[in-house]
Amino acid sequence: MTTNHAATAVDDLTTAFSSRRSLLRRGIVLGLAAPLGAPVARSLAQDAHDDEHGHDESGTPEAGGVGSDAGTEDAHGGEGEHTEAPVAAGAVQPFTLYDPFLPSVAAGPKEVTMVARDATVLIADGVPYAGWTYDGTIPGRPIRVVEGDTVDVTFRVDAAANAHHSLDFHAAKTAPDVNFRTINPGEELTWSFVPKHPGAFMYHCGTPEILMHIGAGMYGPIIVDPKEGWSPAQELIFLQSDFYVADGPDGIKVPDYTRMMGGRDMDYVVFNGYANQYVENPIQVAVGEPIRLFVVNAGPNVWSSFHVVGTVFDCAYINASPKNELFDLQSITIGPGDAACVELTLEEPGTYPAVNHAFGHAAHGAVALLQAE
Amino acid sequence: MTTNHAATAVDDLTTAFSSRRSLLRRGIVLGLAAPLGAPVARSLAQDAHDDEHGHDESGTPEAGGVGSDAGTEDAHGGEGEHTEAPVAAGAVQPFTLYDPFLPSVAAGPKEVTMVARDATVLIADGVPYAGWTYDGTIPGRPIRVVEGDTVDVTFRVDAAANAHHSLDFHAAKTAPDVNFRTINPGEELTWSFVPKHPGAFMYHCGTPEILMHIGAGMYGPIIVDPKEGWSPAQELIFLQSDFYVADGPDGIKVPDYTRMMGGRDMDYVVFNGYANQYVENPIQVAVGEPIRLFVVNAGPNVWSSFHVVGTVFDCAYINASPKNELFDLQSITIGPGDAACVELTLEEPGTYPAVNHAFGHAAHGAVALLQAE
Amino acid sequence: MTTNHAATAVDDLTTAFSSRRSLLRRGIVLGLAAPLGAPVARSLAQDAHDDEHGHDESGTPEAGGVGSDAGTEDAHGGEGEHTEAPVAAGAVQPFTLYDPFLPSVAAGPKEVTMVARDATVLIADGVPYAGWTYDGTIPGRPIRVVEGDTVDVTFRVDAAANAHHSLDFHAAKTAPDVNFRTINPGEELTWSFVPKHPGAFMYHCGTPEILMHIGAGMYGPIIVDPKEGWSPAQELIFLQSDFYVADGPDGIKVPDYTRMMGGRDMDYVVFNGYANQYVENPIQVAVGEPIRLFVVNAGPNVWSSFHVVGTVFDCAYINASPKNELFDLQSITIGPGDAACVELTLEEPGTYPAVNHAFGHAAHGAVALLQAE
Repeated sequence: MTTNHAATAVDDLTTAFSSRRSLLRRGIVLGLAAPLGAPVARSLAQDAHDDEHGHDESGTPEAGGVGSDAGTEDAHGGEGEHTEAPVAAGAVQPFTLYDPFLPSVAAGPKEVTMVARDATVLIADGVPYAGWTYDGTIPGRPIRVVEGDTVDVTFRVDAAANAHHSLDFHAAKTAPDVNFRTINPGEELTWSFVPKHPGAFMYHCGTPEILMHIGAGMYGPIIVDPKEGWSPAQELIFLQSDFYVADGPDGIKVPDYTRMMGGRDMDYVVFNGYANQYVENPIQVAVGEPIRLFVVNAGPNVWSSFHVVGTVFDCAYINASPKNELFDLQSITIGPGDAACVELTLEEPGTYPAVNHAFGHAAHGAVALLQAE
Repeated sequence: MTTNHAATAVDDLTTAFSSRRSLLRRGIVLGLAAPLGAPVARSLAQDAHDDEHGHDESGTPEAGGVGSDAGTEDAHGGEGEHTEAPVAAGAVQPFTLYDPFLPSVAAGPKEVTMVARDATVLIADGVPYAGWTYDGTIPGRPIRVVEGDTVDVTFRVDAAANAHHSLDFHAAKTAPDVNFRTINPGEELTWSFVPKHPGAFMYHCGTPEILMHIGAGMYGPIIVDPKEGWSPAQELIFLQSDFYVADGPDGIKVPDYTRMMGGRDMDYVVFNGYANQYVENPIQVAVGEPIRLFVVNAGPNVWSSFHVVGTVFDCAYINASPKNELFDLQSITIGPGDAACVELTLEEPGTYPAVNHAFGHAAHGAVALLQAE
Repeated sequence: MTTNHAATAVDDLTTAFSSRRSLLRRGIVLGLAAPLGAPVARSLAQDAHDDEHGHDESGTPEAGGVGSDAGTEDAHGGEGEHTEAPVAAGAVQPFTLYDPFLPSVAAGPKEVTMVARDATVLIADGVPYAGWTYDGTIPGRPIRVVEGDTVDVTFRVDAAANAHHSLDFHAAKTAPDVNFRTINPGEELTWSFVPKHPGAFMYHCGTPEILMHIGAGMYGPIIVDPKEGWSPAQELIFLQSDFYVADGPDGIKVPDYTRMMGGRDMDYVVFNGYANQYVENPIQVAVGEPIRLFVVNAGPNVWSSFHVVGTVFDCAYINASPKNELFDLQSITIGPGDAACVELTLEEPGTYPAVNHAFGHAAHGAVALLQAE
């Protein structure tokens, strides 16, 4: 299931083909003679970008940091093997609570450095998962900036990583084949952007198979505050994601690409990377004080019908933009790769579960407790 | 599959754990050594609530009306048995049309009494289902109140019920671990609330496994009219829900928890509890007069893309709040545990099917006919 | 799996039953003794319409162009055969790019002629599909009109078609049992309507099994411009649909009704009828100039979380009505039988993939490249 990165084909998210012939030829090279029932979409615009600059379609490390085709056929030869995948790397990291509280942030230039690295992390009690991560956690840490800030990004792939990766900020408007391009282990990419739209956004790896890179854990939230700011509140981040696992060596679970493709029969649907972590560790909030919950759905597959038991949302903002205000909601639908924020006040002391009200999802781990005191 | 309520563990929706040790210990007690692929989320804040008031975590009947752990291991011992479940109880009730028309209501104090009781009801032609119900029907009857009313609730669990239950009104803002708490067969709970948000809301049982209690039929709609009222219209309620059934004794179908967990391969998706009941019994409406359709999606799992063939919605209100107005819609997406209302006028005599336009869902029974004359 | 249309039962979308007895009797005739797990919703209002005009429920060709029951039992006798289905007809049509650009249109009377015909078309590279189509393509061509136009419709079913069909415009307000009624091969239906609501709408066949007729490819987009027009932009149409295929004779794939019913495990999710056609053939757009993307989701089953990599939507309109404006979105959820439009400007030259960000869907073919130069 694993592929040495040096033998990984050129297949960046943004690498497109300029001709049908090219697609077919490359499809064969990439092991993409997709079986019925499991067609594989590869949006490969990096190549198109290279092409328009006169590079040949096999790519070169110089032209966007892409690898070589050598050995790819062997690596992809097995039936049903559509993609390289994580393998257990190093010791299982001990459980660490993902802090759901979002610190506030002031306007001004920001520097964001992220390193893609392999890590074996717990995604549920007793379930170690061979993941691909940003900085060793699933999800990556929350980034918070202000509309109009200059955000300087440094993205590296750890030299020991078993695959190449990229970093796509949904909050940025930029050519994906340039600034979201795939780089190899040991390489670094720097660029900057100015977020022009307030909201809660997903960031994620956009390297094919994107489904695998997301399914393996490469995502996180980036909040862009509106220039005028938000009213004071207890601010929390919930990132929902779904996991599909298979047995790997040494009792470590590995991503199951086939079931990801099915998009159903998920093993876990979780908030902030670990099933029921805030059931075990309820989130303490102040009773009678406003709460603002940013909810990002990283997918890869399932929707959320986000709800907090025991309250009604005073208001909600689609994609967390102040311009998209709704009122009086019991729940809000959030698609994969999308987000919202909701505002509520818990008026009586008590324990209020936040759930994905698709209860087959909640029953897979998408429950968190807000303890109001 | 069934568990005597006296032997049922403390596992209210709002029972949280104060420690990991507690979770693991109770997990074992509850038969929650969840197999991979079927992790079980239990949001158990009742316990947390008990804990913070100094009760021990096994609970007592005095502390929230919870039962005893005794005998639970035996009851939950079978592989794949995640939860207690309904069993066929009494004779199959004859089919009764669920009246889709919503009477209007005046502002003022309201009294709502509901009794959770086991009942075997038809959910499709020739399909008797061993359900858990409110007052013997699936869904429970529509409740309608006005924003600002005082609503006095009396909730009882029938003494002959085979499980403990609770009652969560999405329209209420209150501590779930207090007023939505689980009570045992023969017990009663009274409380009151003042709905502060207009809208169409779901009510349901919030007792774990919540998925099972919803899947077994414990839900209904509660409409909170805005203080300023709605314009005159023919008002209807459609509650969509999905069913997953297995063969039980005596030809009675029983809830299939494993497939509920999968969240797919539903057997029925229905309006107001019975597949195609309004195909057999079209709803007579007046041509050329406004219609307001409140649509509540109780789930547990599938979304709705609600549509009426032969018309366009003049307007629609997300969660049926007058503040969230949309126009010119062909369909509206409604998640499980969520709602909307749509306004339309059928301008020519004819038969207009209302459907979930996810046609794999419609084909499972989510079709109703509006006969305009 | 096929049924000669002359032997097809009366089962129009809008054929309702006036009595339970009638339902049961017809259910048997139609082979509708629905097995558990595959209940079949039939909204059969044509019959009701016939009934109210004094026709008997078996229908006659004179009464709405319906067929005869003769021979139906044989045709539907096989277990698991719920419906007639397409069979490979004629040669496989060569791949033709579905033009994604929408020409503008001026207000004024419009004539729309469509012919339902069997055709075997490619839905992915090397995947010929025995489809039912409008005018030989999947999807049917985009129709564009202006709010207030008179639209004269001529709908024919090709004399060589293997089933009867109908044509339902979501943009029209009219009695479905009259103007969306089913007609037989060789027949023609003319009528007209005035679209009163601006938006992007689906058109489709509404003949039962509707799920099969949609799944077989009978749908397309109809755009109704607001009277006041849209601001200038590069305008594109993306229609998403999902396919479920089984092996048919001669290497041709045929629709798989059972898996359509499941509503999951789709084989392809595509834009404009062919997996990844705009990956092979990127869409050339002008950098720095506004783009308006109309997105219609024909289903039959899966939702879209529509996203364009490398940008944020400046604004979006639910159902493409100017009244339903949202801002600052990364993605937008669009249900089956629903639509939206989004506006964006690609500010840097590059290749920007449009995707269904439910990446298990994207990985089945729902990817398109926008090449900004």
